Amino acid sequence: MMTLAEIAELLKAELRGDPSVQVSGLGTLKGANSGQISFLTNPRYRAQLKETRAAAVICRAEHADESPVPVLVVSDPHLAFAVISQRFDIAPVAVAGVHPRAIVDPSAQIDESASIAAGVVVEANAEIGAGVVVMANSVIGVGARLAEQVRIGANVTICHGAQIGARTNIQAGSVIGCDGFGFAFNGQGWTKIAQVGTVRIGESCDIGAGVTIDRGAIEDTVIGNNVIIDNQVHIAHNVTIGEGTAMAAQVGVAGSSQIGRFCVFAGQVGVAGHIEIVDQVQVMGKSMVSGSIRKKGIYASGVPETDHETWRRNAVRFRHLDEMAKRLKAVERRLDDSNPAK
Amino acid sequence: MMTLAEIAELLKAELRGDPSVQVSGLGTLKGANSGQISFLTNPRYRAQLKETRAAAVICRAEHADESPVPVLVVSDPHLAFAVISQRFDIAPVAVAGVHPRAIVDPSAQIDESASIAAGVVVEANAEIGAGVVVMANSVIGVGARLAEQVRIGANVTICHGAQIGARTNIQAGSVIGCDGFGFAFNGQGWTKIAQVGTVRIGESCDIGAGVTIDRGAIEDTVIGNNVIIDNQVHIAHNVTIGEGTAMAAQVGVAGSSQIGRFCVFAGQVGVAGHIEIVDQVQVMGKSMVSGSIRKKGIYASGVPETDHETWRRNAVRFRHLDEMAKRLKAVERRLDDSNPAK
Amino acid sequence: MMTLAEIAELLKAELRGDPSVQVSGLGTLKGANSGQISFLTNPRYRAQLKETRAAAVICRAEHADESPVPVLVVSDPHLAFAVISQRFDIAPVAVAGVHPRAIVDPSAQIDESASIAAGVVVEANAEIGAGVVVMANSVIGVGARLAEQVRIGANVTICHGAQIGARTNIQAGSVIGCDGFGFAFNGQGWTKIAQVGTVRIGESCDIGAGVTIDRGAIEDTVIGNNVIIDNQVHIAHNVTIGEGTAMAAQVGVAGSSQIGRFCVFAGQVGVAGHIEIVDQVQVMGKSMVSGSIRKKGIYASGVPETDHETWRRNAVRFRHLDEMAKRLKAVERRLDDSNPAK
Repeated sequence: MMTLAEIAELLKAELRGDPSVQVSGLGTLKGANSGQISFLTNPRYRAQLKETRAAAVICRAEHADESPVPVLVVSDPHLAFAVISQRFDIAPVAVAGVHPRAIVDPSAQIDESASIAAGVVVEANAEIGAGVVVMANSVIGVGARLAEQVRIGANVTICHGAQIGARTNIQAGSVIGCDGFGFAFNGQGWTKIAQVGTVRIGESCDIGAGVTIDRGAIEDTVIGNNVIIDNQVHIAHNVTIGEGTAMAAQVGVAGSSQIGRFCVFAGQVGVAGHIEIVDQVQVMGKSMVSGSIRKKGIYASGVPETDHETWRRNAVRFRHLDEMAKRLKAVERRLDDSNPAK
Repeated sequence: MMTLAEIAELLKAELRGDPSVQVSGLGTLKGANSGQISFLTNPRYRAQLKETRAAAVICRAEHADESPVPVLVVSDPHLAFAVISQRFDIAPVAVAGVHPRAIVDPSAQIDESASIAAGVVVEANAEIGAGVVVMANSVIGVGARLAEQVRIGANVTICHGAQIGARTNIQAGSVIGCDGFGFAFNGQGWTKIAQVGTVRIGESCDIGAGVTIDRGAIEDTVIGNNVIIDNQVHIAHNVTIGEGTAMAAQVGVAGSSQIGRFCVFAGQVGVAGHIEIVDQVQVMGKSMVSGSIRKKGIYASGVPETDHETWRRNAVRFRHLDEMAKRLKAVERRLDDSNPAK
Repeated sequence: MMTLAEIAELLKAELRGDPSVQVSGLGTLKGANSGQISFLTNPRYRAQLKETRAAAVICRAEHADESPVPVLVVSDPHLAFAVISQRFDIAPVAVAGVHPRAIVDPSAQIDESASIAAGVVVEANAEIGAGVVVMANSVIGVGARLAEQVRIGANVTICHGAQIGARTNIQAGSVIGCDGFGFAFNGQGWTKIAQVGTVRIGESCDIGAGVTIDRGAIEDTVIGNNVIIDNQVHIAHNVTIGEGTAMAAQVGVAGSSQIGRFCVFAGQVGVAGHIEIVDQVQVMGKSMVSGSIRKKGIYASGVPETDHETWRRNAVRFRHLDEMAKRLKAVERRLDDSNPAK
């Protein structure tokens, strides 16, 4: 429970309305009840603003007059909502201490303010900092280090020696520090190359569920501070990702590629190995990035869906695109030859 | 063990052959032994029917005369085989009760007919219905609800508050109810938006291994009844999926998209966020769906493989496709100008 | 710790330098310290060779003279490095025996040299061979068999009856033997087809993290010897993969496809179901393989990224490619008609 006065202070917002109104949760403009706070960013939803029954709405000054309920005026309602949303989170609060059914190696060091849930296995020489939460049935490998306030979901595997920076959140089922895909062909099959680097994840990162991040082959895989990674992303060995970069679900980055700061990759993008991508590159969904990108901007590949019959005909033509280009050139030459004045 | 008479009754099939023949398992037309039942749907395999040594074959009337062994005549052999296959499943039968090495919070409610395997963690206020099976080392989060006959594979995570409908099956390693990928940029990095919605999965759904389904940001992510989802599918926050829709492996659906009933998505399809897809849409493998689809039918994108050299030449030309189109238009104009009668 | 003399003997290398030099680890040419061994394969890094401070470098004869430090001359430095890397692995060494906090069914057979970590669940009738390592919180299902020297990472699920060949390595979070995606439409929804085959994985395979490999529907899914599979790969039911084939991350193979020996699939490739791919086929990243490939060679599909504006224009044209092809043909005809001599 917070009053609008308290929320206004937290958000440094201008409050227009009764400061004593109580807020107990979050809602959409359309769905909020009289105890929930909502927000408006996209003008498309102004009609919903006019009919909202929320306790209050966070919006820009230009929309404030249209609200039938109290408003908190800010310059960036989306960001303000993000800040306030954390006060109304419904995630269970972890209790400090090691659950009696966790299994902790005697050589592991666990801060007494950390919360280690049932079924968690903490292996030899692991170090777990203040305020860390490790949820049920996760495994913290030999010598792994979790800095303060790290939060590890259920069934996560932090492999031996992996290092997780302060305040970083890793969701359920992810694997951090698995071996990279390194093999040498021996004439008859594959000889594995031991992966002796590790993985270092920065501070205040957010890593989704079902993510895999490989340890380095010799040197380390490095994820910068405040990188956000969605579910089922794969990061191969020796990749480096700069501060503040965002990757949506099912992106894959092949080995040794270096990705800049504040890039944004939409879902299912594939990045080839051994390339460089500079800062502030945006890549649209499902694109194939097969070479280095040296200039900031927006990139894309692929073709959007059409009905199947149209697609089938076009896809067949694609197989002959080079031939078409040559025929077009030939046609142009014939026209030039027959009509040299043009 | 079932007799052909019993099977015929179950399938409402016409039995041609000895009703006392015993069946103990399933086989392919080619591989079945004399204790196994097989089926024929695709006429391509008629040659195999003629040489089968199965105990009996389920087929349509038109193929019955070609079988050297007893036949069960039905209109849809594939469906009839599905029904009978469940009687010969080899999956281990779970024993009711909580394994002494499961870890159950005292506030959780577990029906006495449920089976909770070794290493499972059931957190506070979770509710587990009649006949539910939770396999080893899975985690049922705070306040999650599993309705009757739900089956949860090993190492699954059901996050706090997630709701799973009756008879739904979730395979190993999946994560249901993880946080959606919601962040606001704060000028220097990303501020997480607490994800306070939940996820509601309908009845009789089937969800594969390694799947991730996000909880909603404010309102819920909703999966309809009888939806079937293959391995490594990702469903983002606030997606809704209509009844009976099928998604093959590695499909990804971005946030807030609404997908209709009885759609079929082949493997690796990517669906953009905030779009709508009506009922009965089929999307072919690896397609990118970047906008709403408002008419039922079959859709596709992408181009199939060719040999690398052909591909390389065509892909280069694709980068100049717009220019080619303009040159083609110019050529047409030149021809029209020089030959106005045409 | 090994001396260069010992390493030279192991690698059958010609040693040029002091045989008593001690090596304690691996390094890159650039980063290695005086206790670490490095290697040179790619001539691009010759400048780094000249300045290396490594204990020794593995290289070909042609580069030996450029090294300021001892060299081990071999014909394939990459392979030699792979061999020696395994002696300097940093992965924790498992201790034989069953951890007191593992949970083992009395009917399971576990070789006394195997290592079963904390939190592992071994179900009824599972068989675990000599030297096997099963890491924390993994689940070995009913009747599963792990041959000698198999290594299973943390939080892995080996489903009932799955068979893993000797020396095969499966990394954290993978699921082997989950049900295939088999359903029959019943007019109102989907009836599941019980998946009564199993999965057999060959010897000396290497399987990454977050991989899912389905059990067969009736007959088995079969992975050949020495197959290497990267993270988040999905293999559907009844797929067969020949010896020595390699699949990079996020590849998906649909049901019943047969893949030859010594193929190489780059990341995010999608392979349709019910097709055949012969031996020694290479498929480039993100390709869609929609039909059988009957001739060895290199294959590709898709188009690489461009800047977004160029992409948008080209993608729009792609939707009219068939029409463009027809217009080009028409233009050629008009030219032929007006200029029959050409």
